[in-house]
Amino acid sequence: MALEVLEFSTILTAVRGVTLHRLPEVCDSRGLLSICELNRSVPFEVRRYFVVSAAVGATRGTHAHRNLHQFLSCIHGQCNAIADDGETRREFVLNSPSVGLYLPPMTWGTQYRFSPGAVLLALASDEFDEADYICEYSEFLELAKRLR
Amino acid sequence: MALEVLEFSTILTAVRGVTLHRLPEVCDSRGLLSICELNRSVPFEVRRYFVVSAAVGATRGTHAHRNLHQFLSCIHGQCNAIADDGETRREFVLNSPSVGLYLPPMTWGTQYRFSPGAVLLALASDEFDEADYICEYSEFLELAKRLR
Repeated sequence: MALEVLEFSTILTAVRGVTLHRLPEVCDSRGLLSICELNRSVPFEVRRYFVVSAAVGATRGTHAHRNLHQFLSCIHGQCNAIADDGETRREFVLNSPSVGLYLPPMTWGTQYRFSPGAVLLALASDEFDEADYICEYSEFLELAKRLR
Repeated sequence: MALEVLEFSTILTAVRGVTLHRLPEVCDSRGLLSICELNRSVPFEVRRYFVVSAAVGATRGTHAHRNLHQFLSCIHGQCNAIADDGETRREFVLNSPSVGLYLPPMTWGTQYRFSPGAVLLALASDEFDEADYICEYSEFLELAKRLR
């Protein structure tokens, strides 16, 4: 139960502000336990979570948020997640509850290649707000350009 | 995307302080989405989450916490969760990411009957603290008696 000695780490990516987080885990005969201390691994205050039980072949996301921060972790099965800041795009395999992907505001995100039974946990910094979505990629590129 | 109209509810149980929460969900061709707004459905500030990928046949929990609040949701597969306040004990089937079980401090909790591949998400009100655990049921009963 000495969680203090377990590994956790934050990995910078080539996409502006996007970070990968390795969460500590404990494995014993009862199964695997992955632990996320929010103020250590999640760079925003969490106000909402949602759980995506994705259909095989589905593509989710394909939008950006103006102000919302998100933290994605595939806690059963696996999926691929693309993060795009308007200039740089990278693809990540989320295949463990011990891996989290932080997407800051103004990141175009896509999740796809869900394995059968895959479940994606998303933590979010605010309640649902339709006005916060940018669903047109051309609009996103235009707004992202102004940030540089 | 009109989440305001979706159902969410809180159900009181016979166990002191323990509540069941129905979370809104959206289902479309891309899969199922369950949404939890923390300040609406989770009666404490979340500081940590952990994900349990349980072995079939495993029993987890079997302890109480002095001060920790927890919110359990089986987000893949299913399990049974027992909540016990020292006088009253009830068993709940957690079989959907749209169902959450709130366990206040001083509740003896046990989770078992995990289906193959079951994944339990637990939200917690504080970081790990070994001193917060009560692992002897007789001690729990003694302390619970003083609360009445």
